Amino acid sequence: MNLEQAKLKYIQTWGSLATSWGINKTMAQVHALLLISTRPLSTEDIMDELKISRGNVNMNVRALIDWGIVQKEYIVGERKEFFVAEKDVWELFKQITKERKKREIEPVLKTLDELQQIEDNSEESKEFKMILNDLSTVTNRVNGILDNAIKADEHWLLSNFTKILKK
Amino acid sequence: MNLEQAKLKYIQTWGSLATSWGINKTMAQVHALLLISTRPLSTEDIMDELKISRGNVNMNVRALIDWGIVQKEYIVGERKEFFVAEKDVWELFKQITKERKKREIEPVLKTLDELQQIEDNSEESKEFKMILNDLSTVTNRVNGILDNAIKADEHWLLSNFTKILKK
Repeated sequence: MNLEQAKLKYIQTWGSLATSWGINKTMAQVHALLLISTRPLSTEDIMDELKISRGNVNMNVRALIDWGIVQKEYIVGERKEFFVAEKDVWELFKQITKERKKREIEPVLKTLDELQQIEDNSEESKEFKMILNDLSTVTNRVNGILDNAIKADEHWLLSNFTKILKK
Repeated sequence: MNLEQAKLKYIQTWGSLATSWGINKTMAQVHALLLISTRPLSTEDIMDELKISRGNVNMNVRALIDWGIVQKEYIVGERKEFFVAEKDVWELFKQITKERKKREIEPVLKTLDELQQIEDNSEESKEFKMILNDLSTVTNRVNGILDNAIKADEHWLLSNFTKILKK
């Protein structure tokens, strides 16, 4: 396997992982490409590499900027816009986790809370409220695990690199 | 909001959460229905409640059984099969996490490892391998966080319930 083949396989792998996590495949591929690029890429560069349309690149780059994991970059003397990805993979994980918490977990916690307010004291309703309560408890717990992961001692990455260097 | 409306909203909420995590919406709705049911449900019960076809119920119930979160149940004197969901929500979270680790994270770690083997010592290749290495490190770290969550002291759920009882 040469470098080009390896890059292609890497971009495809990231794309299929993303779809199983509910992220648009093209968005993941654009991100994967920017992540390994050694220089800022223009819309045309991304179109060429991934064989996708300008509209598709624009839409997905915009989404990546909204997620806070890609930034615009201006190059002196160039009229075109360029894009770069956050290269620190741990920062990237933290940023994605924060966004998903905000976009997905928090609205669910709110809905579970609202549903608990039904006024009905039948046995069936008590059972329903008990399950809602368990779901809230576990969702809050997962939320807490993610918060701890985000806040985790950031030295671990450094210490990991040190271990690699010592090998 | 009455009980029926609340149940409907709960089933819809779970369905849309699931799609943003790459899980089939109908599969999530069948699961949500079984989770709050006070008795085992037959294929016909599920068809009636969710207004979906027999084939669709069969396919999704089978997938839920494969995930280890729904079981068949036989009732004496009944020819039909019935289904019940794992009711312990923390067990449910652990089971789903275990399956996703096995199905998604482990294959990615394997691919990242394979891609590191390319024989190419250009600058570009070194940069690529560095990013692959960072991705492996962070993915392993996430895997570790999930392992810890699965193994987490299970008394927390009990202690949580105790707190609720004391309110």
